[in-house]
Amino acid sequence: MEDRPLDILNKSLNAPIIIRLRGGREFRGELQGYDVHMNLVLGKAEELKDGEVTRKIGTIVVRGDNVVYISP
Amino acid sequence: MEDRPLDILNKSLNAPIIIRLRGGREFRGELQGYDVHMNLVLGKAEELKDGEVTRKIGTIVVRGDNVVYISP
Amino acid sequence: MEDRPLDILNKSLNAPIIIRLRGGREFRGELQGYDVHMNLVLGKAEELKDGEVTRKIGTIVVRGDNVVYISP
Amino acid sequence: MEDRPLDILNKSLNAPIIIRLRGGREFRGELQGYDVHMNLVLGKAEELKDGEVTRKIGTIVVRGDNVVYISP
Amino acid sequence: MEDRPLDILNKSLNAPIIIRLRGGREFRGELQGYDVHMNLVLGKAEELKDGEVTRKIGTIVVRGDNVVYISP
Amino acid sequence: MEDRPLDILNKSLNAPIIIRLRGGREFRGELQGYDVHMNLVLGKAEELKDGEVTRKIGTIVVRGDNVVYISP
Amino acid sequence: MEDRPLDILNKSLNAPIIIRLRGGREFRGELQGYDVHMNLVLGKAEELKDGEVTRKIGTIVVRGDNVVYISP
Repeated sequence: MEDRPLDILNKSLNAPIIIRLRGGREFRGELQGYDVHMNLVLGKAEELKDGEVTRKIGTIVVRGDNVVYISP
Repeated sequence: MEDRPLDILNKSLNAPIIIRLRGGREFRGELQGYDVHMNLVLGKAEELKDGEVTRKIGTIVVRGDNVVYISP
Repeated sequence: MEDRPLDILNKSLNAPIIIRLRGGREFRGELQGYDVHMNLVLGKAEELKDGEVTRKIGTIVVRGDNVVYISP
Repeated sequence: MEDRPLDILNKSLNAPIIIRLRGGREFRGELQGYDVHMNLVLGKAEELKDGEVTRKIGTIVVRGDNVVYISP
Repeated sequence: MEDRPLDILNKSLNAPIIIRLRGGREFRGELQGYDVHMNLVLGKAEELKDGEVTRKIGTIVVRGDNVVYISP
Repeated sequence: MEDRPLDILNKSLNAPIIIRLRGGREFRGELQGYDVHMNLVLGKAEELKDGEVTRKIGTIVVRGDNVVYISP
Repeated sequence: MEDRPLDILNKSLNAPIIIRLRGGREFRGELQGYDVHMNLVLGKAEELKDGEVTRKIGTIVVRGDNVVYISP
């Protein structure tokens, strides 16, 4: 059975995910939406450093270009 | 319920947002417009550093390419 | 009321703008034209550093790829 | 006989692969899916450094843009 | 009256221009041709450093990707 | 007589090639396949440093984006 | 009279050219082919440093993405 990348995002809607961006920035939040460019909407987003929360941001729209990986 | 990235931008029209650009630059302003490339128009834009206003710029058109995330 | 990014450029034709490029370079001039890639034509262009004019260049065509933001 | 890049990914479904990303990051996991942009879904993903596991992550969606090579 | 970026290039055919590339390299020469990607053909091209000629190259085809600005 | 880039790749199928990637990484192997993006499949791939083999990897799929040149 | 960038490449077929890549690498060789992305085939290619030959490589396919300029 195969899970395409966007299938995984679809299954992760309304569930917590962690995303890693270029440059090392990491965010945790609830996936509220996405599009084919992997632009993402995260709710209750928090910035992480070494696994620790460093900032609470609320909702953010992340541009897919910057994403290295998404972990549901 | 799903909110696609551009839906969030649409809901944020005429409301304050914060945008983070590559290289760490951060702006706060009122979202006056956007397009599918996430090019943005910010009114009453202010540049921020560590959450403090460092410069008032007025209206700016930001090229989407440089956007890391947008926080409504 | 919404102003899309290219609307702002259109309204700025023949008016002074400031553009910021990647790498920190900044130019001031009169917007004489643009296209959908945000390639720009600036007349009476001057290069700025910390708000001071460092060079007068005349007309320049700036490739949109390098633009971070445009301030009308 | 020729094996196109996506053929190799197809043959590697549900099998272990190693991927190398820009910046030197390396992951090992089971290829659960992919798309034409080489976006990848890795199951039971582990981050590697000098061949040693440094972190267990579970499932990740890796954006193809960051991939240097994939080793089935 | 509006001058689109490619109009300026068109008017500059067979006339001297200066181009600035990413990384700071600068060339002076006669614009012999261009295309929609802003790939350029320069005749009698010379490389400049701080406004001084450092090398004479003859004809060059410059890939538009590298262009920051063009000054007719 | 003209040889287009993809013609050269086609003629090199099942033959040894060396590829150079951005950042200086170099691989040697047998070209088993390619596509129009210059994504490549290398069999019996070996990583090289200063012409010396530093690692044997087996089959790899290299993303074309990272390729600087290919030497058949 | 106008010479578009690809016209210049066409006229340079089977003739010696020098290409400059991002990062400063320079190659000299005979242009054997090209495509619209400015991917190039060089025969009898030699790598240059400060105008001196540092390596003889034979035929290479250079990915256009890396090209800064081509000098026929």
